[in-house]
Amino acid sequence: MQRPNAPSVSVESYHSHHAPLGAFATFTVGLVGSPGGFGYALRGPARQNVYVGFRIGEGDWQLLPFFNPPESKASAFTTEAAVVQAPKNVRALNPSEYRRTLGWASDTWRAHDSRFGFTLLSPFDHTDEPSRMAKQAARLAFSPHINAWIEFDNREGTSGIELIFGLGEPDSIFRPLQDAEPELVGFALGTQFGYATTLQSKAEARQGFDVFAPQYRDHRGLCLIGGESALIFRVPAGAKKRFPLVLAFFEGGVATTGIQTRYAYTRYFGDLVDVATHGLEQRAHYEKLARTRDAELESAKLSLDQKFLIAQATHSYLGNSQLLWGEKGPIWVVNEGEYRMMNTFDLTVDHLFFELQWFPWAVRNVLELFQERYSYTDRIKLPDGKTKPGGISFTHDMGVQNNFTPAGHSSYECDNLHGCFSHMTMEQLLNWILCACTYALKTEDKRWLKRKQDVLLECARSLQLRDNPVAKQRDGIPKHDSSRCGSGSEITTYDSLDVSLGQARNNLYLSVKALGAWILLAAAFDRLGLASDTENAAAAATQLARTVRGKFDDSTGTFPAVFEAGNVSRIIPAIEGLAYPLFLGLPDAQREGPFKDLLQLFSQHLKNILQSGVCLDATTGAWKMSSTSTNTWFSKIAISQYVVRSLFPEALSAEARAADEVHAAWQRVPGCGAFAMCDQIRSDTGETCGSRYYPRGVSSVLWLREAAAANRSSA
Amino acid sequence: MQRPNAPSVSVESYHSHHAPLGAFATFTVGLVGSPGGFGYALRGPARQNVYVGFRIGEGDWQLLPFFNPPESKASAFTTEAAVVQAPKNVRALNPSEYRRTLGWASDTWRAHDSRFGFTLLSPFDHTDEPSRMAKQAARLAFSPHINAWIEFDNREGTSGIELIFGLGEPDSIFRPLQDAEPELVGFALGTQFGYATTLQSKAEARQGFDVFAPQYRDHRGLCLIGGESALIFRVPAGAKKRFPLVLAFFEGGVATTGIQTRYAYTRYFGDLVDVATHGLEQRAHYEKLARTRDAELESAKLSLDQKFLIAQATHSYLGNSQLLWGEKGPIWVVNEGEYRMMNTFDLTVDHLFFELQWFPWAVRNVLELFQERYSYTDRIKLPDGKTKPGGISFTHDMGVQNNFTPAGHSSYECDNLHGCFSHMTMEQLLNWILCACTYALKTEDKRWLKRKQDVLLECARSLQLRDNPVAKQRDGIPKHDSSRCGSGSEITTYDSLDVSLGQARNNLYLSVKALGAWILLAAAFDRLGLASDTENAAAAATQLARTVRGKFDDSTGTFPAVFEAGNVSRIIPAIEGLAYPLFLGLPDAQREGPFKDLLQLFSQHLKNILQSGVCLDATTGAWKMSSTSTNTWFSKIAISQYVVRSLFPEALSAEARAADEVHAAWQRVPGCGAFAMCDQIRSDTGETCGSRYYPRGVSSVLWLREAAAANRSSA
Repeated sequence: MQRPNAPSVSVESYHSHHAPLGAFATFTVGLVGSPGGFGYALRGPARQNVYVGFRIGEGDWQLLPFFNPPESKASAFTTEAAVVQAPKNVRALNPSEYRRTLGWASDTWRAHDSRFGFTLLSPFDHTDEPSRMAKQAARLAFSPHINAWIEFDNREGTSGIELIFGLGEPDSIFRPLQDAEPELVGFALGTQFGYATTLQSKAEARQGFDVFAPQYRDHRGLCLIGGESALIFRVPAGAKKRFPLVLAFFEGGVATTGIQTRYAYTRYFGDLVDVATHGLEQRAHYEKLARTRDAELESAKLSLDQKFLIAQATHSYLGNSQLLWGEKGPIWVVNEGEYRMMNTFDLTVDHLFFELQWFPWAVRNVLELFQERYSYTDRIKLPDGKTKPGGISFTHDMGVQNNFTPAGHSSYECDNLHGCFSHMTMEQLLNWILCACTYALKTEDKRWLKRKQDVLLECARSLQLRDNPVAKQRDGIPKHDSSRCGSGSEITTYDSLDVSLGQARNNLYLSVKALGAWILLAAAFDRLGLASDTENAAAAATQLARTVRGKFDDSTGTFPAVFEAGNVSRIIPAIEGLAYPLFLGLPDAQREGPFKDLLQLFSQHLKNILQSGVCLDATTGAWKMSSTSTNTWFSKIAISQYVVRSLFPEALSAEARAADEVHAAWQRVPGCGAFAMCDQIRSDTGETCGSRYYPRGVSSVLWLREAAAANRSSA
Repeated sequence: MQRPNAPSVSVESYHSHHAPLGAFATFTVGLVGSPGGFGYALRGPARQNVYVGFRIGEGDWQLLPFFNPPESKASAFTTEAAVVQAPKNVRALNPSEYRRTLGWASDTWRAHDSRFGFTLLSPFDHTDEPSRMAKQAARLAFSPHINAWIEFDNREGTSGIELIFGLGEPDSIFRPLQDAEPELVGFALGTQFGYATTLQSKAEARQGFDVFAPQYRDHRGLCLIGGESALIFRVPAGAKKRFPLVLAFFEGGVATTGIQTRYAYTRYFGDLVDVATHGLEQRAHYEKLARTRDAELESAKLSLDQKFLIAQATHSYLGNSQLLWGEKGPIWVVNEGEYRMMNTFDLTVDHLFFELQWFPWAVRNVLELFQERYSYTDRIKLPDGKTKPGGISFTHDMGVQNNFTPAGHSSYECDNLHGCFSHMTMEQLLNWILCACTYALKTEDKRWLKRKQDVLLECARSLQLRDNPVAKQRDGIPKHDSSRCGSGSEITTYDSLDVSLGQARNNLYLSVKALGAWILLAAAFDRLGLASDTENAAAAATQLARTVRGKFDDSTGTFPAVFEAGNVSRIIPAIEGLAYPLFLGLPDAQREGPFKDLLQLFSQHLKNILQSGVCLDATTGAWKMSSTSTNTWFSKIAISQYVVRSLFPEALSAEARAADEVHAAWQRVPGCGAFAMCDQIRSDTGETCGSRYYPRGVSSVLWLREAAAANRSSA
């Protein structure tokens, strides 16, 4: 993917996903000077010219800058010299001429003293488990469309206004939707996606080689062989008008292989026209929902930068979400951005916080499939080169690009490696424990917890064996690589960082995550009335906490990232594992709770590393996950910020507190914004270096809990 | 579409479609230095790297030059500097190092003293009407796959040989087919297309970021998140081995809108795996069929250049063919190359000659849909600005890019125009008459002819009215534009040429086409026992012939192209309309037949225009359709050549006879070859200027009749 020509880095310019829930589909737009448009299961923005704007009387069209000068394809027919024939009466608005406002469930551009407005809505809501929903409710919840509107306040105008919403596709030709449904005015590409307005809008439909000055028109004003299409709306002088739009998706066939599924929405909708019609008819519902979500974020006691990050991240999460239906019922998938791996488990554990708020059934659904199809039992490697029985764990993911991998295997994990693409057995074991316990304890779904009792016990056993097969030699720290690694060794989700976070064995981050897992297991076993297991889990936590305390380096007042080979890296995600007990409000994650000594050391650790040149980037001031890597990940920083601000506020210097502004600024300019929400970023430049078009930033919704807590304490 | 970097124009370098019948799908490959690969309903070649080649021992891979240096996508995961990491052990063969042979139903590359071989097969056969076929026969006839093989003769070798067939997709990831079917070794992109070999081939499946030196391998040797995939075959020293490949397509969902259809093959096959399995199992059948077709063309008494043109054209025809199934049964469509218009009628009339040979039901199928859905009755415009009732005619096409247009309207025709995109009412009326009569008379399908008697009578009436509503004022020449044109005027299929061929009214080409139509109508009415209608048609032909004779310009010994405004253009397609009676062997198209006087004048006309600087390009020697345009169309030249060589051999100078070599050379180099068969070509440069990736060149199969006639006369 080439990055389009970017304006100066100080100018706000970023793509956002605008996506319905569960359709793995998006209308991506927003980057200055760049196409975008409808995309389905893509690894980055589509390449359609998007024409949105207005003109006053017979003046030039003034458009938001979401297109390249369109090249007329007429010459392929007429064999005129094949020169680029950009429309002559079109001007792209300069970013200084419009204002963009990204809400939690909306994206609005205003220009011409706010008289012109264009809004895309992508509301989301609490949803029930799909298999229990009535059709009408499911249509509302899972319709694969987004609503939009275009408007102009011409009450003080003296000329008529024309508004345009249109698209230019370099390789494809749209069809007029009126052919399929006389109540719709709009265009679609095949059976897959399209846009429309109502008959009542009295929009003029245009199609051809140039929608701004159509040269060729058939009996109804269209030129069907042209790749450009648009709706023209008219606002007479003295009037103010808002016109509704619907952007609809439909993928009717087999959606995935490996496990054969179709999109869940194909159970509720017949085709694209059905979706578009529904979207227009029910727009009041969706508009209200978007207003509610927008207001919720708007009113949160967070900075504007924080709210922007949450909004942008949520947009990208929705664009990666996918609700499928197979033989056995619904399957929830979140795709991994540009990599398109399916339900990558180390993302699931971060999406958890968002999903438990809005659709907790999705967490349970993913956990079930991990257990049924993507769990395995391995052996573990001993220092002497022999192996011993390991235990249950789970694959890194369930497949890639709409293909579910065979049972027991991920798409990512390869053998005999020490870095990227190696196995993540310890990490994914922890992730199943953390997701399962957090789900069950948060939602109080005791029936499900009871059904998973055996798996949780198996997980606890597996976790212990990965510490040491010999009980007496255990200190709590996972340190035995899976035999699946072959000659290699396990890695963590932080695969592309240096060894400070990349190596799983004897890893501080993973040890504290294991501590979180034991704390949650203890709570879950307690809820299940398993007294001795509760005691064992609590004891494991206590032992692990003691071991970790022992790793504290008094000379620097910090923990080393890896308890091996004199590692000197210092890492912020040392405290990531505390997020789960904290989120659940367990006493274990209280400063004066049972782990107060360890937490006191973390306070020192954080105070000493949240310093410029250590884990605050010396150039930009951004949070760096590791002192020895400039590769930093927004979604993970967001979780650590939640933990630090909630539990260790004393560790925050003014500079550390100010970093949200830096993190937000990165996402607002093309270095990240060319790919909507980006996760892996160079801390010294703010440019993305991986994990583009990514869902995981939605972990930042944890901040809303800080805001809520602040509200409570100020009340 | 950017044209890839082309080698020197003298080096053979061209893409070809390799396509099953009726799938609108192709594996396009062949242009030097350029990707290609699997494409479905595209307007040009796909952009996949195609890896085909061999290596000796541990030497470098030597590949046919069908790829760009692949860029490793691993860096998106590992965040190494995102440099292009081309595999280091790969060398593209220079065109001088291999030999390509395009057969009628095959395409073969040989290298390394012919020891290496790669062949793609695209056989076609006589097929019955699909609705009457048993499932097993239909599977054989319409399976959406092509067979291929890769081979090496290592009998004299001392090292083991590795062969590779693989693909690199920039935006997508393939899935291993063995997950779906253990008997297959290969890869697929989703549910849509893929390639495989048999288990017996003992091929190694590779997938990853670099298939030539895989760095990352999972439990079965793959890296599922990489966009490159390949099969590696091994030939030990002393052995000669040929390995089968199948390239399969499957589009399971709704294929078209407007008229909702699915691909016919979805009635016979369950999915891609079913197709691939069938293709491998039945490969002997397809290989034999390809051999038969190849031998038929090979043995024809035609020049190598002529055979090449027929082969290349047939490949592109197949790639544009589409057999659909709607509520009412099968629908045959040929798509119009880069424009993707469906069943463009002025192509149907040219494909006629091929289709009547192999699947005449396709012609009837298209005619039925034109009659039922795409016919209309218009009014005609009189010189005084008034209109009078016209009659039946037909639309230019049935839609574009898999969307059938509403009844009575094409995707192409617009109003109020005098050039491109105007209506073609006269031309399409003639096309229905010519196709219907040629079909019925050639196949002797009297039942169908009887059923269409009323339509033919209506057509005859309409043709007369377009001459003149007042019977007494008729001279046979169509000259009244349809009121559908609005303020514009009708055009012909030669839409992008100058007025010499573009204007329908008083047009020499169209007049002789009308003559052909009257001749065929007379023959058809005679067959129907309609004595007075036969007489009327014959009289109309006689009158028209007389009128045309009167247009002869004795001073130049030629006909003007347009009987208006002192037109001085001279055109070859003056005699195109004679192709139909000639094809049917009617006496009307014999030099000593009823139109001998007119034919004698045509002989003079042709002699005088088939001269350098007139209708032979002064620079290249190519046939130019019009003396006043450098835009010349291969498919139409091919028809005229058939007529000229069959009826007017005395008009052929040595230079005119030699032009096949020029026409073939154009298609063999990137000026045309970058888009497989191209139709519109600049006569002075040989570069395509429109109608790329085009089916119509298949009209050149008419030459096989010349060859057959030559055989008969020499026998």
